[in-house]
Amino acid sequence: MSEATPKAPTACVLIIGNEILSGRTQDINLNYMAKSLAGRGVRLMEARVIPDIADTIVATVNEVRAKYDYIFTTGGIGPTHDDITAECIARAFGVKLILNDEIYQMMAKRYPPGGLNEARLRMAHTPEGASLVPNPIQGPPGFRMENVIVMAGVPRIMQGMFDAIVHQLNGGPPIQSRTVNCPLPEGLIAKGLGEIQARYPELDVGSYPTFGRGTPETNLVLRGTDSGKLAVAVGEVVALVRSRGGNPTEL
Amino acid sequence: MSEATPKAPTACVLIIGNEILSGRTQDINLNYMAKSLAGRGVRLMEARVIPDIADTIVATVNEVRAKYDYIFTTGGIGPTHDDITAECIARAFGVKLILNDEIYQMMAKRYPPGGLNEARLRMAHTPEGASLVPNPIQGPPGFRMENVIVMAGVPRIMQGMFDAIVHQLNGGPPIQSRTVNCPLPEGLIAKGLGEIQARYPELDVGSYPTFGRGTPETNLVLRGTDSGKLAVAVGEVVALVRSRGGNPTEL
Repeated sequence: MSEATPKAPTACVLIIGNEILSGRTQDINLNYMAKSLAGRGVRLMEARVIPDIADTIVATVNEVRAKYDYIFTTGGIGPTHDDITAECIARAFGVKLILNDEIYQMMAKRYPPGGLNEARLRMAHTPEGASLVPNPIQGPPGFRMENVIVMAGVPRIMQGMFDAIVHQLNGGPPIQSRTVNCPLPEGLIAKGLGEIQARYPELDVGSYPTFGRGTPETNLVLRGTDSGKLAVAVGEVVALVRSRGGNPTEL
Repeated sequence: MSEATPKAPTACVLIIGNEILSGRTQDINLNYMAKSLAGRGVRLMEARVIPDIADTIVATVNEVRAKYDYIFTTGGIGPTHDDITAECIARAFGVKLILNDEIYQMMAKRYPPGGLNEARLRMAHTPEGASLVPNPIQGPPGFRMENVIVMAGVPRIMQGMFDAIVHQLNGGPPIQSRTVNCPLPEGLIAKGLGEIQARYPELDVGSYPTFGRGTPETNLVLRGTDSGKLAVAVGEVVALVRSRGGNPTEL
């Protein structure tokens, strides 16, 4: 893989939750963020799924926040004993977890008298110095601590939070993607494709086998920020497929 | 989270592929493996999605193979330039990538004369010392190098390979799971639930908000290897929900 844009900001997603690792839940948050970040010109370099274990969360957050420009976490910000993300982020940054007055006021309005119990009040706590990430869907907001953006795990809520903050990121030129379907197995075009990748190191040329119509086909995906270069490289891919006897179609 | 079985073997999944990080592809392999590993009594402790960058793959494999009992990788074992998993595993183990005669013979039978070109021959290479992971679906096998099990990325093929090897793992007692639906928001039962988790540290008690019927509900998931303890704890969860005015149902 080449660097589509050497200076594009980078990102890492941390999916915090035993429910993903146990197989109970199929994660769909990563894919949502991945697509959106590409459009924003942010390179998603890594994603990790980690369990609800405080030491693991703290160590992982500290490792990746030093390595990437943006960290997006999902999960673990509710009222129950397994919701430990906020306290772990505070620990990772070496700050206190404090009652956030803005969240407290929101929640005090929402719940009937007596409803704002001790468990729910946990959701009004953020690390000292955090700013809020709006929650346009339901429940308390997420928060941002330096380059770490902390969101809910429920996809509908996570997506609302993410959409509310993604435009604030320092993006790069959008990463564009073009896909050419090749009705041949990838082994027949692999050599030429590698040569095209070598000629366009600033693009990312991927080859994905598929059996959509029952016989081996290949989807060739070209990604990069320079639409002119992309167009030229797509032309070469199309010519390559034709030269091997296939009829390429752009998807 | 508590340790369901302190001595249960642990696992980590490495999803290798730009297509997941770009958002082009929704991963479904992790969930498949997660469910199966739980049934086999193997604790999936972490999953990472990493790009097709050799240094990243090598470093990540070496980090996690020292940390967990089993590593499962998906993706990057095809014939194209972006299929670099086998060479990276060889580098990680400090061994040569060699032509595997068993794979070569399989492939020689499969392709017509002249069809086994240079690109396809790449798929017949494995790290020196690797054993093969059968591929009952289509194409060349995966391989295993010590505790690292290397599989294809195409879900149908990955699943076939995984199913072919999962019974060979040294498992522990199966991790059982019981789910109680609570028709109340989790904030109403959070305190009592935390107390149940504290009383059963050998179980893993998770709380997952849901809006299935339009109002906030909670699915309470209890996991562990001791079905007797699980039954008692489920009883306490049911009583907790009733005590808060909800009618619990086991899912």
